[in-house]
Amino acid sequence: MSRENMAEEDRPKEEAQNEWAQKAWRALSAVRRQSPLIQCITNFVSMDLMANTLLAAGASPAMLHSLQEIPDFTPQANALLINVGTLSDAWLPAMKSAAEFATQSGRPWVLDPVAAGATGFRLKACLELVGLRPTVIRGNGSEIIALSKASLGATQGVDSIHESVDAMECAKSLAKASGAIVAVSGAVDIVTDGRQVVGARNGVAMMQRITATGCSVTALIAAFVAVDPLHALEATVLALSVFGVAGEMGMEMAKGPASLRMHLIDSLYGLDQAAVLSRINITSLS
Amino acid sequence: MSRENMAEEDRPKEEAQNEWAQKAWRALSAVRRQSPLIQCITNFVSMDLMANTLLAAGASPAMLHSLQEIPDFTPQANALLINVGTLSDAWLPAMKSAAEFATQSGRPWVLDPVAAGATGFRLKACLELVGLRPTVIRGNGSEIIALSKASLGATQGVDSIHESVDAMECAKSLAKASGAIVAVSGAVDIVTDGRQVVGARNGVAMMQRITATGCSVTALIAAFVAVDPLHALEATVLALSVFGVAGEMGMEMAKGPASLRMHLIDSLYGLDQAAVLSRINITSLS
Amino acid sequence: MSRENMAEEDRPKEEAQNEWAQKAWRALSAVRRQSPLIQCITNFVSMDLMANTLLAAGASPAMLHSLQEIPDFTPQANALLINVGTLSDAWLPAMKSAAEFATQSGRPWVLDPVAAGATGFRLKACLELVGLRPTVIRGNGSEIIALSKASLGATQGVDSIHESVDAMECAKSLAKASGAIVAVSGAVDIVTDGRQVVGARNGVAMMQRITATGCSVTALIAAFVAVDPLHALEATVLALSVFGVAGEMGMEMAKGPASLRMHLIDSLYGLDQAAVLSRINITSLS
Repeated sequence: MSRENMAEEDRPKEEAQNEWAQKAWRALSAVRRQSPLIQCITNFVSMDLMANTLLAAGASPAMLHSLQEIPDFTPQANALLINVGTLSDAWLPAMKSAAEFATQSGRPWVLDPVAAGATGFRLKACLELVGLRPTVIRGNGSEIIALSKASLGATQGVDSIHESVDAMECAKSLAKASGAIVAVSGAVDIVTDGRQVVGARNGVAMMQRITATGCSVTALIAAFVAVDPLHALEATVLALSVFGVAGEMGMEMAKGPASLRMHLIDSLYGLDQAAVLSRINITSLS
Repeated sequence: MSRENMAEEDRPKEEAQNEWAQKAWRALSAVRRQSPLIQCITNFVSMDLMANTLLAAGASPAMLHSLQEIPDFTPQANALLINVGTLSDAWLPAMKSAAEFATQSGRPWVLDPVAAGATGFRLKACLELVGLRPTVIRGNGSEIIALSKASLGATQGVDSIHESVDAMECAKSLAKASGAIVAVSGAVDIVTDGRQVVGARNGVAMMQRITATGCSVTALIAAFVAVDPLHALEATVLALSVFGVAGEMGMEMAKGPASLRMHLIDSLYGLDQAAVLSRINITSLS
Repeated sequence: MSRENMAEEDRPKEEAQNEWAQKAWRALSAVRRQSPLIQCITNFVSMDLMANTLLAAGASPAMLHSLQEIPDFTPQANALLINVGTLSDAWLPAMKSAAEFATQSGRPWVLDPVAAGATGFRLKACLELVGLRPTVIRGNGSEIIALSKASLGATQGVDSIHESVDAMECAKSLAKASGAIVAVSGAVDIVTDGRQVVGARNGVAMMQRITATGCSVTALIAAFVAVDPLHALEATVLALSVFGVAGEMGMEMAKGPASLRMHLIDSLYGLDQAAVLSRINITSLS
């Protein structure tokens, strides 16, 4: 559709879209320029892809989770990522301590509550972490629903979590209750501060057939928030979209999930302004 | 060779081969359709490739090893994989507990006794796990030999394990002693319940130059057994063969072990009926 | 430049270069032929790439870090690699014990003091490990500077470490103080025993955008030292160069860091004499 043929009512939408794309490019450029140090306390499965995602985006990953090192290290990091994927009681104290040091040092920190509702131990740990005031929480629909209901004191149990519950409403409730920006990954990624809701539509379905893509985009959110901590909602949306664009470009060369993984990282590394401007697909949903 | 020219005596063999191939396709289709949840308590080196192998096959991996979470989680999983590769005394209680919960819940579980004979601590741990009645045990020749001899009370020690010992006999003994299906990886993969022995000839040698391919195929066995728990011997043979076929197809595109790893996973993801039917190479050895 | 046109003064340099290249090929061939068993106690992020690097080079990796297994296992290994990347107090005793067993068994061991200066806990641990007499220490400039200054009792603190400090002088001091061969990675890799300094100029900048390439080359050093323990300085230089050559060859096919990672490993696996002889770039710097 040429610009001339565009209906009048589409122009403001296109302009908003374009504004988001410009912001995405500026945010990615800032990450590349500033190379923020991102401390990652994350699950074992994700470490390799997460570190490579951050490096490809221009950030500096540091996988460091030792309780003894947190007082020295966490205040030096520009942002902190906590992911509970392979949670154990040996690691939980370090996660809490790092969250506290990050908050005390005025650093943003991002929580990935992997499989939050899968066990009582995990849900309790996630709720304790939510209580330490993450800047951003990113999960899939069932994780955010489980966390939101538990935060609000709903009777828990796997049975009580129905897929029919609206993830968007749960995300808004969780955002209000926790003070965090909440992002829900899905066919459309949704990001909310409890009032405003923004949707990011980039990405391809096959990314879900690669382990740790969700974990890695949460780390990328930490990098984007690190370079623009005062606009955490925007930074979260932009990181999700940029990762999605890299996935779309990777998909054009991929023959399956393993080659997609490779091309996604290569694409993230090589992402240029033209690709970002033409592909970013973000819309306000409220 | 056209079917017309085929000697009479080859026809039954070809028909048996074809039957195995049909079963392989049905088993892979069932994994893709049912997407069984496979809990993996595995070594750190293997986590990435194992999770990606399960995802590429259509299964749902869950790397979860925390003792506190096992009572809630293990009964929800469709099968359990325990791999002792990076064993520690911190993880062993969780391995045992998960094995017990799986058995109590009527779930199949699969043991990968990595380097079973390398140290006394490891051999003892493997024997304790064997005592918890795994559905399947898969190892290489020296692992199965070490485990078999130790199970039978043979005097242990590295010196006592000679490569000349017949792995097939040891596999049969271990199967009888443990009640498990025992699979031995090698140029020909051998699977036995102590009486019947089936050989799977798919795969390529370069797969041994990629870390965690053995670990990953054991996880794939867990996925195949999960969707057909009453035929664990068959499911084990089929998983080994399907993974081998993916390796063969990957090898046609590979330039070395790292590209083979990528193409293997892509091939597993994209494996179609024609490839399975034409390539599966399984024969009864007794 | 044809050999005829070469200035007289360049001939000895070219001959020295050629001698290094011949040594590199012999060393790689020895690793492939002997397939040394390399015990790796390393950080979680690096395990996958490190194991695949060793396998691609022809060595046999064993990621084994359990304190209980070290007395049985470490004396069997041909060399030991200790990398403190994801250090914890749970792992430190095993690192120390393995270092002691390696030394007692006359096995070489190699230390990678990742982020040595980042925290007090880490620096102290690294100094304790240096005290256990590693055969080789490899780090980047700031790691070697931090370790060298701390070894010499300099007042510590992040503030005291200036980038302007000469890494080469620190490497020489650390080598003299510790008795280890010290390697500093950089645009030119430097290797010293405290007197002699050799520079290795192979490799490409993009390797720094792949996580764990530094960790992996340290493991490759362990493999090269394992097959020539009496010439640890040479073996260290050769391993760095061979890995760099694989990176250069990988870079010719790469479109970004993830494809470089794949092509690097494929190239290391396939490296032939012609490539080694034409590409190795090693020079004596003192």
